[in-house]
Amino acid sequence: MKLIKNLNILIVGLGLLGGSYAKGLKKLGFTVNAITKDSHSVDYAMENGIIDYGTTEIEPELIAQADLAIFALYPHVFTDWIAQNQQYFKEGCIITDVTGVKGCIVRKIQDMLRPDVEFIAAHPMAGREVSGVENSDDSIFIGANYLVVPTEKNTPEAIELCENLGKILGFKNVAVLSVAEHDEMIAFLSQLTHCIAVSLMCCNNTPGMERYTGDSFRDLTRIARINDEMWSELFLSNKQALLAEMDRFKGSFDELYEKIKNGDRDGMREMMRCSTERRGLFDKI
Amino acid sequence: MKLIKNLNILIVGLGLLGGSYAKGLKKLGFTVNAITKDSHSVDYAMENGIIDYGTTEIEPELIAQADLAIFALYPHVFTDWIAQNQQYFKEGCIITDVTGVKGCIVRKIQDMLRPDVEFIAAHPMAGREVSGVENSDDSIFIGANYLVVPTEKNTPEAIELCENLGKILGFKNVAVLSVAEHDEMIAFLSQLTHCIAVSLMCCNNTPGMERYTGDSFRDLTRIARINDEMWSELFLSNKQALLAEMDRFKGSFDELYEKIKNGDRDGMREMMRCSTERRGLFDKI
Repeated sequence: MKLIKNLNILIVGLGLLGGSYAKGLKKLGFTVNAITKDSHSVDYAMENGIIDYGTTEIEPELIAQADLAIFALYPHVFTDWIAQNQQYFKEGCIITDVTGVKGCIVRKIQDMLRPDVEFIAAHPMAGREVSGVENSDDSIFIGANYLVVPTEKNTPEAIELCENLGKILGFKNVAVLSVAEHDEMIAFLSQLTHCIAVSLMCCNNTPGMERYTGDSFRDLTRIARINDEMWSELFLSNKQALLAEMDRFKGSFDELYEKIKNGDRDGMREMMRCSTERRGLFDKI
Repeated sequence: MKLIKNLNILIVGLGLLGGSYAKGLKKLGFTVNAITKDSHSVDYAMENGIIDYGTTEIEPELIAQADLAIFALYPHVFTDWIAQNQQYFKEGCIITDVTGVKGCIVRKIQDMLRPDVEFIAAHPMAGREVSGVENSDDSIFIGANYLVVPTEKNTPEAIELCENLGKILGFKNVAVLSVAEHDEMIAFLSQLTHCIAVSLMCCNNTPGMERYTGDSFRDLTRIARINDEMWSELFLSNKQALLAEMDRFKGSFDELYEKIKNGDRDGMREMMRCSTERRGLFDKI
């Protein structure tokens, strides 16, 4: 299957990410339909031209039209949806997703899925600290990273299609990782950072601090505004990897603590030079 | 003394912050002269109209012209400079600064200073992760916080002058804090955040992570690109307060760790809702 303009794309879950995919794909000329739980999201998306057609119902004919289905749901909702509705897909349909953890879903879905439908997992490393289709914005993909997470069950054609989907949406780097590599990477780069932001925001309740702060505290806590339902599920779905990364960070933080306590200025400066040098690699542009 | 346009302002230390002050004050119509250690900074600032006149020498006549002197130096350089050159100030000159820690300098300088010259401490909560007058930018002050840190030795007139300096430069909130309050606040809002960013950046050296990351890791490590000479001095100048804030953060991080380890989803969600609610106060606009 090629990403040609007459392709029929179904988005399941029209939130921030589902809506951003819909906007980007609609602009590129694809037919974009959506199924989502909330009728307000459908109304908003239809009125704003984000989708061609949307519904809150399971409409078998709509599902059967899809060449490509993109799932932007919580992990357990995604697996339940596939279990209940996969019979409606047409033969050859390709399924992909945006789920932030892969170990808990990729095999489960690939194992239950009909042999004539293929699931190729993906994770767009883009988001905002607000939710809902009203906040969707396809410019969040520009310059961002896109991870494709295949298993040995995937065909080269589906992997290539998924890579191309990332490219046409404007992602800068499209990388391929195994499920285990992905979950370890995400535990460090995404989940640990959210744990740090939440802990930092919770640990001090002195009134009035917002009148004294600079941008560093704002930057470190931007993601402390967090969807607790989704992130608690993601954390527990990747618990062992996340705890290992939390231990890794604690080791480094304790090391810096000891250097400060001991007045080891050379040791502190060595860590700061290390962090300065490494950070140079991470600039977006 | 009022902040009227014929005021003669001397900037000592023409780096990122000194240069940003110079730009802002020059645009407002003041006469702005500068003394700094590096002749390249003088040349750059003169060629770009950032200052009226600059020099790398201690020029007694230049110092004697200043109605207001703004020091943007490392703490120990600032105190040495005052000890060696305070005899050149004219009677009634007001001195202020931008130093990030106050306990180690405010009393020291007020105690050594001539009785006819007044030092009123200030801390602009603005900066960039790059240094030098070439990167100076007075727009960093817009919407930011400005802290005035008086002692009982300060006059109401000097405190008011310093508050007005913050206001005319575009700071959004001008707050007054005691030395102890300032250093405790800064240990949490600024120094702890830099410790976290450095620790996070140092704790994992897996190659290629920049191709997989999202914005959350970028945000949490922006300030990991750090001036090691300056920040190691600032950390050690405020060691006890900083260690106390590091302990506070560790307590909260360990609490979240235990909740994840025990699968306590309700407890995790409670912390996330707390962080989400509190973060709402910190938006810049």
